Amino acid sequence: MVDEFTARIEALGFAAADARTLAEHFADCERRGKHGHGRTRVDWLETLPDLQPAARPERLVAEGGYERWDGSGALGYLTLAAICEAQLAEPPEHARVIAAVRTFPTGALGYWARRLADGGLVAVLTATSPRRLPHPEGGPPLTGTNPLAIAVPSSDGRAVVADTSMGRVTYGDVLSGVAAPEELVPFGGEHAHKAFALAVGLQLVVDALAGPDYGAVLVVARPDADPVPALRALAAGRRLPGDS
Amino acid sequence: MVDEFTARIEALGFAAADARTLAEHFADCERRGKHGHGRTRVDWLETLPDLQPAARPERLVAEGGYERWDGSGALGYLTLAAICEAQLAEPPEHARVIAAVRTFPTGALGYWARRLADGGLVAVLTATSPRRLPHPEGGPPLTGTNPLAIAVPSSDGRAVVADTSMGRVTYGDVLSGVAAPEELVPFGGEHAHKAFALAVGLQLVVDALAGPDYGAVLVVARPDADPVPALRALAAGRRLPGDS
Repeated sequence: MVDEFTARIEALGFAAADARTLAEHFADCERRGKHGHGRTRVDWLETLPDLQPAARPERLVAEGGYERWDGSGALGYLTLAAICEAQLAEPPEHARVIAAVRTFPTGALGYWARRLADGGLVAVLTATSPRRLPHPEGGPPLTGTNPLAIAVPSSDGRAVVADTSMGRVTYGDVLSGVAAPEELVPFGGEHAHKAFALAVGLQLVVDALAGPDYGAVLVVARPDADPVPALRALAAGRRLPGDS
Repeated sequence: MVDEFTARIEALGFAAADARTLAEHFADCERRGKHGHGRTRVDWLETLPDLQPAARPERLVAEGGYERWDGSGALGYLTLAAICEAQLAEPPEHARVIAAVRTFPTGALGYWARRLADGGLVAVLTATSPRRLPHPEGGPPLTGTNPLAIAVPSSDGRAVVADTSMGRVTYGDVLSGVAAPEELVPFGGEHAHKAFALAVGLQLVVDALAGPDYGAVLVVARPDADPVPALRALAAGRRLPGDS
């Protein structure tokens, strides 16, 4: 599947390495059942009139505890891939916050967070996208689905990767007809105000640090401890977030 | 109410300034209807056999983008208060991650995040507490209720403050008999796996950076933009998180 996707993306004008980076993300999403971020996105790329396959994300600020990146017309996937690569190449001494402006679309955020955790870093990542979630009391869409991905490495090799969208259904579900548009609301039913609050908070953090276009905010940190194995033992075989 | 609380807390051996810091937190919680973090906690402090009123939180590491604090036996409220004061006195040039070990109890996290936002900083804060939330499929409690507080300042003076616990009810509701113990599960009903994933992710971030005792992790950043007024306009009078 990766080879097929890579070939199709190269045919759009992308360099071989970028095409493979994109293909690996889409293929991983397919394997994990996140079809809205998988093959359908390869199809979708083929329909875009204004792709800039040669655009390269730029790192505008690089300090010990902070980086600022600009997608500069590149696909958000490639911007996040470049950011992950840079963090793994030069991890922070303790922790670092990364603001990524003009970074869209970003795909399955858990995929990028997992890459960082597999390289030994704790990662917390969120990103904005078109406003689709209304207030629980109704009205126009106020926030994106604004997923929050959290990945924590483990000495047993099985990082925990939580990747939670604040929507009751995905936009992909609506596009594919699996869900009705009116189901795209904050999740939680009678407690939807909680998911709405999270979506608003994450929206404003990204808008304040990486806006006004769609952007992403990432925190990476070196762990001081290895808490996953003990949690797995306590869970006694129950599935933890990100387990396949 | 602040004066009454301050007097009662001073009577427990706390210095006047610390007593007032604690009293202001509890009184603010009462005013906002968060009774589980308010007057009942003054009553509770009076029952604790091992209070250390003279203990002082220590800043162990202070770098531009990272700080590490140790509660050192002080109440978590006072540790968070000291951390907030330090951030407002010396804000990061861009952003900073703060790990707070041995920091418990921390009260209403939105209160501390709001202080930072009222001082012009974006704040994201989470903290651990006794494990009370089980896996959605059942079993023993695996995580704390692990609230996530997000506060973003606004040029109109009305910061947005989202403060979301991952529990369907609060532990205070259970203690006071308002809710049954079996209702203390991840919120979200049929989508409880989402709140559970968030609780697990936040638990492991704190455990990895500020564990193994109960701790807190805070991210503060200087905003590059002022997104709240536009969101308020779009919300057309609907209540945003943290509005009173």
